[in-house]
Amino acid sequence: MAEIRRGADEILVESELRDKLERSRAEGRPLRVKAGFDPTAPDLHLGHTVLLQKLKTFQDFGHRVFFLIGDFTGMIGDPSGKSTTRPALTPKEVAANAETYAEQIFRVLDRERTDLVFNSEWMNDMKAADLIRLASHYTVARMLERDDFHNRYTGGQAIAIHEFLYPLVQGYDSVVLEADVELGGTDQKFNLLVGRELQRHYGQPAQAILTMPILEGTDGVQKMSKSLDNYIGVMEPAKEIFGKTMSISDELMWRYYELLSDRPISEVENLKRQVAEGRNPRDVKVELARELVARLAGPDQVASGQEAFESQFQKHQVPEDVPEVTVHAEGPEGVRLPAALKAAEVVASSSEANRMIKQSAVRVDGQKEADRERVLEVGGAYLLQVGKRRFARVHVEAP
Amino acid sequence: MAEIRRGADEILVESELRDKLERSRAEGRPLRVKAGFDPTAPDLHLGHTVLLQKLKTFQDFGHRVFFLIGDFTGMIGDPSGKSTTRPALTPKEVAANAETYAEQIFRVLDRERTDLVFNSEWMNDMKAADLIRLASHYTVARMLERDDFHNRYTGGQAIAIHEFLYPLVQGYDSVVLEADVELGGTDQKFNLLVGRELQRHYGQPAQAILTMPILEGTDGVQKMSKSLDNYIGVMEPAKEIFGKTMSISDELMWRYYELLSDRPISEVENLKRQVAEGRNPRDVKVELARELVARLAGPDQVASGQEAFESQFQKHQVPEDVPEVTVHAEGPEGVRLPAALKAAEVVASSSEANRMIKQSAVRVDGQKEADRERVLEVGGAYLLQVGKRRFARVHVEAP
Repeated sequence: MAEIRRGADEILVESELRDKLERSRAEGRPLRVKAGFDPTAPDLHLGHTVLLQKLKTFQDFGHRVFFLIGDFTGMIGDPSGKSTTRPALTPKEVAANAETYAEQIFRVLDRERTDLVFNSEWMNDMKAADLIRLASHYTVARMLERDDFHNRYTGGQAIAIHEFLYPLVQGYDSVVLEADVELGGTDQKFNLLVGRELQRHYGQPAQAILTMPILEGTDGVQKMSKSLDNYIGVMEPAKEIFGKTMSISDELMWRYYELLSDRPISEVENLKRQVAEGRNPRDVKVELARELVARLAGPDQVASGQEAFESQFQKHQVPEDVPEVTVHAEGPEGVRLPAALKAAEVVASSSEANRMIKQSAVRVDGQKEADRERVLEVGGAYLLQVGKRRFARVHVEAP
Repeated sequence: MAEIRRGADEILVESELRDKLERSRAEGRPLRVKAGFDPTAPDLHLGHTVLLQKLKTFQDFGHRVFFLIGDFTGMIGDPSGKSTTRPALTPKEVAANAETYAEQIFRVLDRERTDLVFNSEWMNDMKAADLIRLASHYTVARMLERDDFHNRYTGGQAIAIHEFLYPLVQGYDSVVLEADVELGGTDQKFNLLVGRELQRHYGQPAQAILTMPILEGTDGVQKMSKSLDNYIGVMEPAKEIFGKTMSISDELMWRYYELLSDRPISEVENLKRQVAEGRNPRDVKVELARELVARLAGPDQVASGQEAFESQFQKHQVPEDVPEVTVHAEGPEGVRLPAALKAAEVVASSSEANRMIKQSAVRVDGQKEADRERVLEVGGAYLLQVGKRRFARVHVEAP
């Protein structure tokens, strides 16, 4: 139960979930654990895997996961036509997206204990009359309690009536799947509760619900999101996963350990103790990075990922005591690179400058520069680097 | 247009309706005029015929009426199970109710220009996905503007979500029927407007709508209703229709003329002028009563209906100056009828009393009394009548 509770935002009702788990063990009947996903083109990042990780925990205890793709609503799209971001998907697109999902989620989930299901299987056949009956089990007032509906309603923003039907469809999915437990993000809590209520109306035991928090991005401030460029993608190369993990703060590292690591709680506690007693947190971060690379890119990618990261990291390492040098331009345009290198004393002579440029050992502002005729402009400031260790920050002044 | 506007509560939009009527005449294409009715057991009264009368006006101008029975929703009933007054109807019950409707409405409507249609014809086949698309064309906020929804929502009374779907279904009926005009009671205005809006979304010209007021009952105060016992039933015998019409006030008579009479506006204006110039309004009321009897009970019933009413009316006529008489009982039980008649001086002798009783010419409290042994009890008060003109109100006192 501690592993199931780990990192969870809320469990409703915890005693019910405990009962279900106990009965499941006593009867040898695995629980049916449901989680619903959007059918639009998935490009998962670690934020999404928080939920997958929790599903995996249930699988590790022997339970069955129903990974539900909400393609029925996806194929309707936004019928009001107001949102161009929700075009109706074709069955072909849904199938393609499902494959993309599968490719990604099975880096976390156990394929053997996962049922990939589509709600179009039962919703496509549903009659309007059945949907009306379904809609009779929920009230307008309770639907308007959902935060986003409430805000839009009181803010005078339109809510189309079919938007009230989608949470009901989602809840009905739990009825069809006879879900014992449903997992979702904290923002899904309302919809998960609708499922609980509808199951009661259809004479089923109500599912327990468990919500997982939204993961912070690598910046440690905003939620992980592709558009904020603070994400670690599930499909990224090992080097990127490693490097981005290494870039997070020590504090955020513990959050990631809690929500993303396979290590038992006791081990994580142990790592914390070690750091408190003086172990370099960087080493603990390396272990997290290795775990994530192993899971997402594969165990065989760990060594090369770490190496690639470290070599690049060291390459990009700029000492703190880089000398500042003022260089006078040769003409009105500025100064050519070999002359600047010599003036900044990162090479001994013009010929060494030319040789180093030819050997691709010279960087300007971190970028390799192979052009001897490159001109540094009057008024500009440049970080010059020769080889791994010679640096200078030059300011170009008029001649 | 004046006949169409006659008595109407509201026409939206009147200029559109005028255009439709003109185009219809120019193209020789009859308008499709829709009105929706509840599928529950109908027992129509004059209040319902206000709408039928207006439909008839359209028929008289050559247009086609779609008398729509909303059996789809009727067969769902109240799926929330909260209302026991809305049980789901079986197809058999719907068919029986439709027959009952037909029997009644064709006393007003022209059978040749009427299509009796059932929305189950298209709604039974509708998929949940189509209903969702339908629901996308209307907003929650606008639905909550409907008076009854608004009052229930602000009053904290539950509105089940399927109740939001019924006006959409009703509006969709207009789409399917490609209605040019829809008629309804003033309380239906909101739903009729939904139809207008949905037609636009489905690329049709929006129907014009025309609402008719609620008819006052024979008391002239409350709306006509069976439960208030102020109604004139469509299936009542001629005598009742005649008598109830004669019982209304002169003021209400003009309202009935406006909303219920087939007479052109000009004729009604003419009658008003006659009354203003001294004609007895009772005679004008007789003409209304005769018209309603002819329509509802049949032209062959007019004479007998009027006669039956008048003879009963005169029988029941009690003069205002009935003498009050105190009669002393013969024994502890009271006094026998013949003795009471004699004591009250409405007969000259006991033998006349017995003869009149035998001839069925004696009434006690308006009811014929043929029993010579009938005892009037001590402490009671009785209205005695002999023949048409002899009355007495007797109070029986202890001997």
